Amino acid sequence: MKLDKKAQDLLFRHARTATVFQDTSVPEEQIQAIYDLVKHGPTSMNQQPLRAVLVRSTEARERLVRHMFDNNKPKTLAAPLSIILAADLEFHQKLPELFPAVPHAKEMFSEPAIRTASATMNTAIQLGYFIVGVRAAGLAAAPMSGFDPKTLNAEFFPDGRLAAVAVMNVGIPADGSPAHPRLPRLAYEDVFTTV
Amino acid sequence: MKLDKKAQDLLFRHARTATVFQDTSVPEEQIQAIYDLVKHGPTSMNQQPLRAVLVRSTEARERLVRHMFDNNKPKTLAAPLSIILAADLEFHQKLPELFPAVPHAKEMFSEPAIRTASATMNTAIQLGYFIVGVRAAGLAAAPMSGFDPKTLNAEFFPDGRLAAVAVMNVGIPADGSPAHPRLPRLAYEDVFTTV
Repeated sequence: MKLDKKAQDLLFRHARTATVFQDTSVPEEQIQAIYDLVKHGPTSMNQQPLRAVLVRSTEARERLVRHMFDNNKPKTLAAPLSIILAADLEFHQKLPELFPAVPHAKEMFSEPAIRTASATMNTAIQLGYFIVGVRAAGLAAAPMSGFDPKTLNAEFFPDGRLAAVAVMNVGIPADGSPAHPRLPRLAYEDVFTTV
Repeated sequence: MKLDKKAQDLLFRHARTATVFQDTSVPEEQIQAIYDLVKHGPTSMNQQPLRAVLVRSTEARERLVRHMFDNNKPKTLAAPLSIILAADLEFHQKLPELFPAVPHAKEMFSEPAIRTASATMNTAIQLGYFIVGVRAAGLAAAPMSGFDPKTLNAEFFPDGRLAAVAVMNVGIPADGSPAHPRLPRLAYEDVFTTV
């Protein structure tokens, strides 16, 4: 590996999904720095469908928590910052600027089902980069899929353009969080085959 | 950012999607080392649905290329290694081992549509980690969505258990590849809002 061991540990080996965070806020500049790094990660035809809502006000936080599963409510209320990561289902409108090499790129996604599938897939890839970026900033990411996407989307994205893919708490992990040992990972042989 | 600038450049700022590779093979041990790092990235309920097929033999490579879009055929034939990244649509079978804290985790995914959506989403997140891992190894990743998933899946996964999400060429980029400048990225203000 070309990446040094310290960086490997920071991004993957020592990084954990925290459940409790220190009471230290995450400034906007830090999120900007993270985005400024991970925006370079590739997406299909440079689609970049990821959109994000930083949930900061007490009122917005309470609105968010109503749509989370019960086990995610208290930790989301207590986290320094929660982010809704969503797919822009109209990402194709920007393709003439973002992927000028293919002039008909926008028209390739005129079918809503194809567009939604591509938006969701590429948002998830960008979510992977974003989780790595949060860790690169020295913070812990706690991504969650335990929420009701239907009611959350109706609440935050009433015009139907965005669709939530994950909600993520972000901050400096409290000492010893998470308390449980890392969950098992699949062996290489269970994942890879060669033909 | 806690991650040093050299590592940031390696993983995101200087890394590019290569189109032409040096004629140097990518040994199995290097792919193992990449997986051994990125396997630690989190997935929903520790699902880990990503599966991968290393396409090495001439015969398998020709079988693969038949399902790629025309513009991706020559570069895939010429790449040192191509990998099919796929979602295990039966990932839930392993949840009793992978997520023992929730004994009914497997049953939560008994509905095929819910299972397929979760498998695809989490495979895409893992694809994001894997692209970062390839770069961490000092290699270039060239992920492609330009293929016919229906015929590719029928060819490589006839039992219907796996579904291809991407095909990725991997290797040491040839000098000056890619020749085109980096495509534009969305500004922070176009992606993030605060509530």
